[in-house]
Amino acid sequence: MNLNELTLHHAQGSPNSRRVRIFLAEKGLIVPMVTVELSRGEQHTSAYRAVNPRGVVPALTLQGGSTIGEVPAIWRYIEESWPEHPLLGSTPEGKARVIMWERWVELEGFAPTMDGVRNQAQGLKGRAVAGPHDYEQVPALVGRSRARVGHFYDDLEARLQQSLHVASDAFSAADITALVTIDFASKAFSAPLPAAHAATRRWYETVASRPSMSA
Amino acid sequence: MNLNELTLHHAQGSPNSRRVRIFLAEKGLIVPMVTVELSRGEQHTSAYRAVNPRGVVPALTLQGGSTIGEVPAIWRYIEESWPEHPLLGSTPEGKARVIMWERWVELEGFAPTMDGVRNQAQGLKGRAVAGPHDYEQVPALVGRSRARVGHFYDDLEARLQQSLHVASDAFSAADITALVTIDFASKAFSAPLPAAHAATRRWYETVASRPSMSA
Repeated sequence: MNLNELTLHHAQGSPNSRRVRIFLAEKGLIVPMVTVELSRGEQHTSAYRAVNPRGVVPALTLQGGSTIGEVPAIWRYIEESWPEHPLLGSTPEGKARVIMWERWVELEGFAPTMDGVRNQAQGLKGRAVAGPHDYEQVPALVGRSRARVGHFYDDLEARLQQSLHVASDAFSAADITALVTIDFASKAFSAPLPAAHAATRRWYETVASRPSMSA
Repeated sequence: MNLNELTLHHAQGSPNSRRVRIFLAEKGLIVPMVTVELSRGEQHTSAYRAVNPRGVVPALTLQGGSTIGEVPAIWRYIEESWPEHPLLGSTPEGKARVIMWERWVELEGFAPTMDGVRNQAQGLKGRAVAGPHDYEQVPALVGRSRARVGHFYDDLEARLQQSLHVASDAFSAADITALVTIDFASKAFSAPLPAAHAATRRWYETVASRPSMSA
């Protein structure tokens, strides 16, 4: 498998795209990238739907032209193909723990943040759920999302008081999703990490200083 | 690793528990099980929180006492430990495709079904999100969830007109989540598979006849 025969379809401001770019950078892998212009609705064109019928980024086109969508699926493909510097765990239990914690971050932090943004933003009226189908915003979800992000921050703090990183003491994909969540919640949902969360701030500084994080 | 040193905490009527029970049965693995009585709120007791702090089922306790929660994490632990009869794919691309499609079923079918039920059921007032935190129901989500399940059924039909099973022509974990979703949407959300969806009905009959499905 030659890296030059892959194509990552991504968008600069898309937090899901960033999860994949950081993962690649942590592995030291350079993959050709194509930008999908979300602000111009390029993800909904028939050209892009032929790449990824769900109409979302990121998506990874393989040698031969077939495409893998969804962040955890792209990660798994990369980890299986280039196993050095594992980010998804090394033992059966370690692999399960990365999935468990990464999923916890996604379900309790990342998804509520996205839900809050999508059900609030003026520009996403009628487009409250990512994907090919149109749904109206549910304004009552915004407050619930904000409460959920608050609980996520509290629970993450409790976790990082016990553990150097999210899934274990070692850096993993769970840390990538957590950092991307915090940055996006702060920037797009006015929900920054609370100042009092000392363990999370210590972890954030360590993780944010990794060269991959600018990817 | 001895199967007798594992414990699966589950509930009979819990669709997430069923996803794990079917997975184990497909592998021919028999694991000791403990029932968590959801109707009595046993998942919120301090005894169960000591097993799984998220307060949800299923959870798999390993030899030594540590616990793995979340269906995809439990699946991965089982597949890594007992790789025979793979249900999560065999090649890097195959593994990625199972994750992609299984996740698609979960995000577009399973999660909206659960969302619809949790935001509608009288017995779940104040408990609209699974997990340790309490949130009020958002009634407007029920209609959106119903629309989403409808789109899921249409998109699944299109997929199964192209493919013998959900992730590829082979049976995989993606089929488990799809079947569990359809059964639960039909039973708990009055959203049965539409009669006109012939490819899905053909697939459903094949999959539902596997002995594992009664697990």
